[in-house]
Amino acid sequence: MRLLNHFPGQLGRRMYAAPSSAAIPAAKKKYVPTSGTYPQGFKVSGTVVGVKPSNTTKPDLAFITSDRPCAAAAVFTKNKFQAAPVTFSRSLLQQKKNSGLQGVLINSGCANAVTGKGGLEDAEAMATEADKALGAEKGTIVMSTGVIGQRLPIKKILDNVPTAFGKLGASHDHWLTCATAICTTDTFPKLISKSFSLPSSPSVEYRIAGMTKGAGMIHPNMATLLGVVATDAPISPELLPGLLKGAVDKSFNSITIDGDTSTNDTVALLANGAAGGQAIVSERSQDYEAFQEVLASFSTDLAKLIVRDGEGATKFVTIRVTESWSEEGARKIASTIARSPLVKTALYGKDANWGRILCATGYALVTEPGASVNEVAEITPEKTNVSFIPSDGSAELRLLVNGEPEVVDEERAAQILEHEDLEILVRLGTGKEEATYWTCDYSHEYITINGDYRT
Amino acid sequence: MRLLNHFPGQLGRRMYAAPSSAAIPAAKKKYVPTSGTYPQGFKVSGTVVGVKPSNTTKPDLAFITSDRPCAAAAVFTKNKFQAAPVTFSRSLLQQKKNSGLQGVLINSGCANAVTGKGGLEDAEAMATEADKALGAEKGTIVMSTGVIGQRLPIKKILDNVPTAFGKLGASHDHWLTCATAICTTDTFPKLISKSFSLPSSPSVEYRIAGMTKGAGMIHPNMATLLGVVATDAPISPELLPGLLKGAVDKSFNSITIDGDTSTNDTVALLANGAAGGQAIVSERSQDYEAFQEVLASFSTDLAKLIVRDGEGATKFVTIRVTESWSEEGARKIASTIARSPLVKTALYGKDANWGRILCATGYALVTEPGASVNEVAEITPEKTNVSFIPSDGSAELRLLVNGEPEVVDEERAAQILEHEDLEILVRLGTGKEEATYWTCDYSHEYITINGDYRT
Repeated sequence: MRLLNHFPGQLGRRMYAAPSSAAIPAAKKKYVPTSGTYPQGFKVSGTVVGVKPSNTTKPDLAFITSDRPCAAAAVFTKNKFQAAPVTFSRSLLQQKKNSGLQGVLINSGCANAVTGKGGLEDAEAMATEADKALGAEKGTIVMSTGVIGQRLPIKKILDNVPTAFGKLGASHDHWLTCATAICTTDTFPKLISKSFSLPSSPSVEYRIAGMTKGAGMIHPNMATLLGVVATDAPISPELLPGLLKGAVDKSFNSITIDGDTSTNDTVALLANGAAGGQAIVSERSQDYEAFQEVLASFSTDLAKLIVRDGEGATKFVTIRVTESWSEEGARKIASTIARSPLVKTALYGKDANWGRILCATGYALVTEPGASVNEVAEITPEKTNVSFIPSDGSAELRLLVNGEPEVVDEERAAQILEHEDLEILVRLGTGKEEATYWTCDYSHEYITINGDYRT
Repeated sequence: MRLLNHFPGQLGRRMYAAPSSAAIPAAKKKYVPTSGTYPQGFKVSGTVVGVKPSNTTKPDLAFITSDRPCAAAAVFTKNKFQAAPVTFSRSLLQQKKNSGLQGVLINSGCANAVTGKGGLEDAEAMATEADKALGAEKGTIVMSTGVIGQRLPIKKILDNVPTAFGKLGASHDHWLTCATAICTTDTFPKLISKSFSLPSSPSVEYRIAGMTKGAGMIHPNMATLLGVVATDAPISPELLPGLLKGAVDKSFNSITIDGDTSTNDTVALLANGAAGGQAIVSERSQDYEAFQEVLASFSTDLAKLIVRDGEGATKFVTIRVTESWSEEGARKIASTIARSPLVKTALYGKDANWGRILCATGYALVTEPGASVNEVAEITPEKTNVSFIPSDGSAELRLLVNGEPEVVDEERAAQILEHEDLEILVRLGTGKEEATYWTCDYSHEYITINGDYRT
């Protein structure tokens, strides 16, 4: 028999369950907000269901609702093995043409992935039960995260939907509990909120709030990564998919923990217009551009929290590749450096090993043997520069200048690497494009967490 | 000042120096031959030079020579930052049209990479000094492996070339010492030899011998991977590059330790014809085909030794992807599974986590966001099968059958995962092509080795 029980974590290990506020590591507490400004018309809750039988205390069912129909869009994983909630929600959004949505119901503890026809029925049943509570018609999308290949304890979940509905509220505590309910191996809930205004309605205060979860299998397209962003700004349904895609490419799709990409990844955006003001109805309006910027920056802040909580991570590393002939080339190089196990272990070892950074740069555009894809562009070794940008605002430390190694002050390098945050800057000297990735290091704890995950 | 000294390894750590026979781990001793049959006309040596000042006892200069001119070919790294010995040797082989070569001189301890014009002069000086000893004219190619960005202690090396020449010999001990001299973080020298015959000269005994070194930065195209293969079969120079490329694609380019690809990788093939018999002069001869097969299988055995010695490795895993619509697709999927940190940590944890294997399969053909490359073909979830093939010859353990999870006997899975060797078989059910990769797991020791490498 497959053993799928997950026993509560031992000391020193991550638990495969949502974190309680007591369990948040001291160093991470600063990333958990103690207050917030949340969009009007939204109510949320987090409920203890016990999706995993071992869980009797942590919220594992999140419900995000709007008191009026929303425009909604979502970006889904590109993994060929798409989980049932992905298939269901994608189809619903298409059918509804991105309008008339009212809720998002999310369980953690079980991914409902590779579960065949039964799994799809479970996903639909969750949505139907939520619709019933909300009095909506085909108004709920669903998400799941957890172990693959296991059916949901669907009765337990459905029985708890009325409870989840009854617990809905708009306070900061409601939002934080809801954000906690979507966590798996995360060590802290990831929640952000902020206010903004739009050019055409300067007196209206709009709000945007979002939650996300990581922590393993994080790599673009996308990851065991769920995200929900809600705003009370009024936006036309047909504009939402483009706005979300643009924001996700530069945020959730620019982070990497381990290069793995999961079956369940979903980021959804809901806009209910409850704050009033002039609606955004055209891509060529100032409001559209302003909101696009707000959403991209907000999504980036949210995505960075996932890297902060990378499994076993001790470092938060920004990889910036500039002066590139193309954005695509810069992205590929940033991504390759961000994924390199040798770079990631050197960072863990606080080792200013620019050779490994250079090495990763050098093979980033090399195709697999036998592949028919050609290299897209050239790197010129004599034009390549690598530097560390310290997080304390002090001067850049040059490691490689125009392809020649610098005599490095190792003491200074060691000081820079003592900080949690670091930027690695690679200037290619061949153009004007750039790209940024965020990543973390590989530690002994990463191996422990992932060697032990199922047992 | 950059600190480039490498102090002798502490207990429990790999030394960044060639292994002495006393230091070879008990479990690896079976991979080190105690005798061999070596190709005629070749003499080799390994000499203690002290390329790294801390090394005073381990051979670190390898010299492989032939008493007559050889046909020679080499496959080099595709990394954009190519080390000086790569640039030098590639150019020499072109200039000599793959003929008239007599020696290969290799140092470990310093990669002579990212060393500019001076580095290129050093590579050339090594070759010239070897030529002088051999009485050859432009007859030596060179290789280097070790830390990047450091100049060679060139005087020390050149001063020792006559010594290396004086120590040349054809015995098994000579070959083993030579194989030891190219090692860096390897825990054992990698040497194989065998005899073979060719259809047109059935009474002639040909021999082939080869050495290689790994252990980190191992991924196709290629790795901090050096290899030299020598045979006494008579082969036309113009046929050698094609023969070698074909063999390397299915051997050295089908292994992965950590997905990193280095600046120095070189595999060279020398054929001196000393055994006599009918020369291979056409691609359309039976002898050509027979030798191609010998070389491919020999190179595969050699390459597998590198995986056996992967940094921190506790497992040797064969990834076979069959029933694919294309070999390219199968390769990409096998490579992606082989590189997945989540698969590699699960193997370390002896966890039959087929979800991660499936997940890697599902994202193998997904392009980076923003990339213009399209997916080459389709995976059909309902046709996908995943099994473990035990190394003890017992029955296959089915994990996923036609996209549906099996009820897995976890006890049996645990038994299978106790063995060092394992085959993961993925049947795609969409065609007839296949590809095989070899990989190892990620352990705590991998992190320790690579977090500490420079310090």
